[in-house]
Amino acid sequence: MSERQNRPIGIFDSGVGGMTVLRALLRQLPAEEFSFLGDTARLPYGTKGRNTIIEYTLHAARRLVESHAVKMLVVACNTASSVSLPALRVQFPDIPVVGVIEPGARAAVRVSPKGRIAVLATEATVRGGAYVEAIHRLNPEAQVVSRACTLFVALAEEGWLEGEVVEGVVRRYLADIFAAQVKPDTLLLGCTHFPLLQKAIARVVGSDVHIVDSAQTTAEAVSIILKETGLARTTPALPAEEAVHFMATDNVSRFAATGALFLGRKLSEEDVELVDI
Amino acid sequence: MSERQNRPIGIFDSGVGGMTVLRALLRQLPAEEFSFLGDTARLPYGTKGRNTIIEYTLHAARRLVESHAVKMLVVACNTASSVSLPALRVQFPDIPVVGVIEPGARAAVRVSPKGRIAVLATEATVRGGAYVEAIHRLNPEAQVVSRACTLFVALAEEGWLEGEVVEGVVRRYLADIFAAQVKPDTLLLGCTHFPLLQKAIARVVGSDVHIVDSAQTTAEAVSIILKETGLARTTPALPAEEAVHFMATDNVSRFAATGALFLGRKLSEEDVELVDI
Repeated sequence: MSERQNRPIGIFDSGVGGMTVLRALLRQLPAEEFSFLGDTARLPYGTKGRNTIIEYTLHAARRLVESHAVKMLVVACNTASSVSLPALRVQFPDIPVVGVIEPGARAAVRVSPKGRIAVLATEATVRGGAYVEAIHRLNPEAQVVSRACTLFVALAEEGWLEGEVVEGVVRRYLADIFAAQVKPDTLLLGCTHFPLLQKAIARVVGSDVHIVDSAQTTAEAVSIILKETGLARTTPALPAEEAVHFMATDNVSRFAATGALFLGRKLSEEDVELVDI
Repeated sequence: MSERQNRPIGIFDSGVGGMTVLRALLRQLPAEEFSFLGDTARLPYGTKGRNTIIEYTLHAARRLVESHAVKMLVVACNTASSVSLPALRVQFPDIPVVGVIEPGARAAVRVSPKGRIAVLATEATVRGGAYVEAIHRLNPEAQVVSRACTLFVALAEEGWLEGEVVEGVVRRYLADIFAAQVKPDTLLLGCTHFPLLQKAIARVVGSDVHIVDSAQTTAEAVSIILKETGLARTTPALPAEEAVHFMATDNVSRFAATGALFLGRKLSEEDVELVDI
């Protein structure tokens, strides 16, 4: 096995949301090691200017590449994915760079029977239009609507994932989309926080609507790229608690507490390195 | 009338929440002029370190004092109020500095029949404990509980102020407080966003529970200080649209859109100056 195959995969997010991507990766690639960096000092990225976001993402990526020698970069943040990928690819031409938008759009187009897709995301992602563009590149005839579901982020971070209140919020956001003449056959969860609410969303929209989770589809894309580039580790599976090096740029205790919820397992403050980037 | 009386009152917040304080001030003091600065580039303050918050607040205050010659500083932000007031008073010894915590605590103690007070605030404010301390300084026998109502912020910013979903969220946060043996007789809304939800909260807790709004009580404190210090303007009332100079450090369009909701009147992008501090 080459030295390169043994290196970790670098994952970057502005906060903890990207841990849903990490969780999917851990399930899919049990032999890999990961370095996860959450830029909690400077979140949220969604309200910041384009150049600022690119600069922040480059800083974070540099940390992962220089200190952790990652073999691949996963941008597990919608805002950063929608603006920073070209700059990252120029800066780090030797390693594959994967965002969350393209894999999500591709999966939605693949499973949607009639190309009627509703993108659920944050306000910033909806305003940026990256999912709609990516879907239309793949299927120019797709009928796409977008809906900013701001409260889903707060629900996920609060750990309110099911029950009457949660379904009430889901219903309020989706009611008019499903009351329209052309109803979506597919929902694309275009925010890394939203997979936590998938069960509640499914209960509201019913089982004949496909739900595509961009965390899951990004993990699949990473898996394919590792195989294609010969970068996959071939060692036996690692225990989950040894497989990830966690870093955050501020408020490590909140990062660990919310992160545990997103990751679906214990994560304590001592497991997270406070870094300055 | 002296030149000093004619100067504006400076109001500072990390975002738009402080506009509930501004709204109360406009109602209470129709002759005054205001300079409102929202540090939207660096929000949220709640997750940042103590020294960083003090530094940011001093920057913002300097801008209001140096460029707008304000006669008074109102810190309409709970996080900044709980850590930055001593530093502001040292830096600007010649002008009164008012925060939101002391007036809110004072009003809650005054109206609470049995000193059973529940503080509803953000996670950061609850963790900081400033309201509980301020209440106990005024009434050492008060029985105070605190509850972080994270979703209230998102509901207010989303403009979801009434209805079943909103009341469901309120009920979920308050259920166990009101199921306890010692029930609160007074709720203190310890976040500048929460006055927008006051009607929904009142509907859930019933009319025999007092609700104290720290925006309203801060405006009353400002009014008293103006009179005591002889700084009140004695000119006739200004039209509301001429009374405020709005500034924000980033994303002026979102500041105007959400601000309008908080202010309860039209506010367009052109009314807001983008400033760098």
